[in-house]
Amino acid sequence: MHIAIIGCGQLSRMLALAGIPLGFRFSFIADDPGQDTACVEQLGAVVHWRPGQAPQELVAALGGPDVVTAEKEQIDPDLLRALETCCTVHPNPGAFAALQDRGREKRLLADLGIPSTPHVLGRTAAAAAASLSLPMVAKSCRGGYDGRNQQLLRTPEDIAAYDARAGHADYIIEQWIPFEREVSLISVRDRAGHIKHYPVTENVHESGILRHSIAPARNLPMAATRAAHDYAARVLQAIDYVGVMAMECFIVQGELLVNEIAPRVHNSGHWTQAGCKTSQFENHLRAITGLPLGSTENHSIAGMVNLIGNRVPAEAALSTHSTLHWYNKTAKPGRKLGHVNFSGSSHDELLQRMDRFRRETGAASAET
Amino acid sequence: MHIAIIGCGQLSRMLALAGIPLGFRFSFIADDPGQDTACVEQLGAVVHWRPGQAPQELVAALGGPDVVTAEKEQIDPDLLRALETCCTVHPNPGAFAALQDRGREKRLLADLGIPSTPHVLGRTAAAAAASLSLPMVAKSCRGGYDGRNQQLLRTPEDIAAYDARAGHADYIIEQWIPFEREVSLISVRDRAGHIKHYPVTENVHESGILRHSIAPARNLPMAATRAAHDYAARVLQAIDYVGVMAMECFIVQGELLVNEIAPRVHNSGHWTQAGCKTSQFENHLRAITGLPLGSTENHSIAGMVNLIGNRVPAEAALSTHSTLHWYNKTAKPGRKLGHVNFSGSSHDELLQRMDRFRRETGAASAET
Repeated sequence: MHIAIIGCGQLSRMLALAGIPLGFRFSFIADDPGQDTACVEQLGAVVHWRPGQAPQELVAALGGPDVVTAEKEQIDPDLLRALETCCTVHPNPGAFAALQDRGREKRLLADLGIPSTPHVLGRTAAAAAASLSLPMVAKSCRGGYDGRNQQLLRTPEDIAAYDARAGHADYIIEQWIPFEREVSLISVRDRAGHIKHYPVTENVHESGILRHSIAPARNLPMAATRAAHDYAARVLQAIDYVGVMAMECFIVQGELLVNEIAPRVHNSGHWTQAGCKTSQFENHLRAITGLPLGSTENHSIAGMVNLIGNRVPAEAALSTHSTLHWYNKTAKPGRKLGHVNFSGSSHDELLQRMDRFRRETGAASAET
Repeated sequence: MHIAIIGCGQLSRMLALAGIPLGFRFSFIADDPGQDTACVEQLGAVVHWRPGQAPQELVAALGGPDVVTAEKEQIDPDLLRALETCCTVHPNPGAFAALQDRGREKRLLADLGIPSTPHVLGRTAAAAAASLSLPMVAKSCRGGYDGRNQQLLRTPEDIAAYDARAGHADYIIEQWIPFEREVSLISVRDRAGHIKHYPVTENVHESGILRHSIAPARNLPMAATRAAHDYAARVLQAIDYVGVMAMECFIVQGELLVNEIAPRVHNSGHWTQAGCKTSQFENHLRAITGLPLGSTENHSIAGMVNLIGNRVPAEAALSTHSTLHWYNKTAKPGRKLGHVNFSGSSHDELLQRMDRFRRETGAASAET
């Protein structure tokens, strides 16, 4: 079985490393001429795509993949349509279309009766302020991962400055939410429609980038877990999604508000490599190739710390209860270069280990 | 960090797959011109070695590895000596010398006061019969893995036929032991001398080849576990061993008899990929590179079934509680082509899952 992945970053790398033991071969589609392909170069052929290229030519250059998938949501619809004429594509192009645009995603959630943050689409901030209250957050409808293309509007002056610039049509303005916690749910749906969910993950972001996760989330009311499962299942079924999908949520007064859905394996699911019988990467591959899903139960309490911007020496990252995933990237400020997975027999023990690591190495602090 | 591995089989493949996430690069030394290198071709450069080649030339062709290790014990001492002049080699060449010859291994065990099967070295079977009793097993001192080069001597006629052939000098004759069970212990020692042991594994062989393992071994007296830890530690320390070492033992009337020691990661430790926080492969790499060892505790009850001689379809090998390691080899009768790791919450549950798989696929039966 040959799987082609759109994108050449760490998620593609970890998908391939999870799939090689299953006997799969991989190739990678570089759809952005400037992108760094070092993460995946070792693991299969890298083929560059240019808009307008004939689908047959691309598929031949890849070596005839059986299935195509992606590590990211921002994909040229032309590329997906071209691939779909020659191969199986999972998740399906319609699922990408529904989730790669924040405006369409919000409409989908509303249509499915899933609570999300109040918002106004394609209007000036002054207009948004009529139905929302300060502070508000303006977000680009596309390309908004890791806090990019987001702007916090705190004051009337921020509103005026925002409205003085052009391009409101591509932005969504959302109510800023004083949430108690951020959690995420990694779910997977196979070709036959079976759905499994990993334990809910608790996430800490700084400067818009995920810094660390722990799972299972602490003291989560059973009703919140049930709601998360229900919301994710509604989305997966509505768009006939096959593969791993990540749903990020705020917890506000004990209730879940869906913030964002990513049609892919997700940074907040990296802990599954250390804490679960089947990682999110292996389960995504099982799902898209029509194989039975693996267990999503956790066997340990686990956590992850992102290595952002600086290399931590392996001797600091590796310990009795931690291991490293290094992405083979060139270090740059703010860049995710790797992550460290931790396990523990209790949340307290886990957090002590993660805190000690962060303290000793400076990893995952906002300054790096 | 660049690690070169002597050998191009599945153990090298799984070492590399465990090491790439740690940020290591790999190359592979093909020291046997006829060998199949398909297991590792995707994961690093393969360099062919020929006896008499200058060490500098080999090391340059490999690309200057920081550490050299091996996936097998039968290595030309010239190759090890050549590498040692240019790189760090772990385990050290003296450790290979002590364990690659069954006669020397037996002497080492005797010197360390470790019980093993009674034996006679380099003599005729008729001479051996003076101190041993029928049945006896004649084994080549070298190259004797997976039951190769072994011969059971049951009758006086077998003795006469054996003695009629030449080459006794390279053979050891051992008392055949009516053992109750075979178990093995996978241990690891780091550069600083710290030792960790995995839970003792219970193994079932057929036709001399490991068919399946389960761990932790059932109903093993604590004294037997303590003895196994003690014996392995004595060997590791005596030969200043760094890396993973496997010790195969018979249990006879509740007591341990050491059968064989392998200076490498071992088939009976493959279950650690599914059942432990740190697999034997990752811990071998941590040890030889001077990094801290990972936990050898098991988080699940786990087992492994070898896929021997025939490809089992992925949809049969993968289930909620099982996963596949496929080695990318061409199928041949009797060849280890992959393995399936299982987990369970009890031994009964685990064995039911493994038995069902074997029944449904014919995997790991002696006929394949």
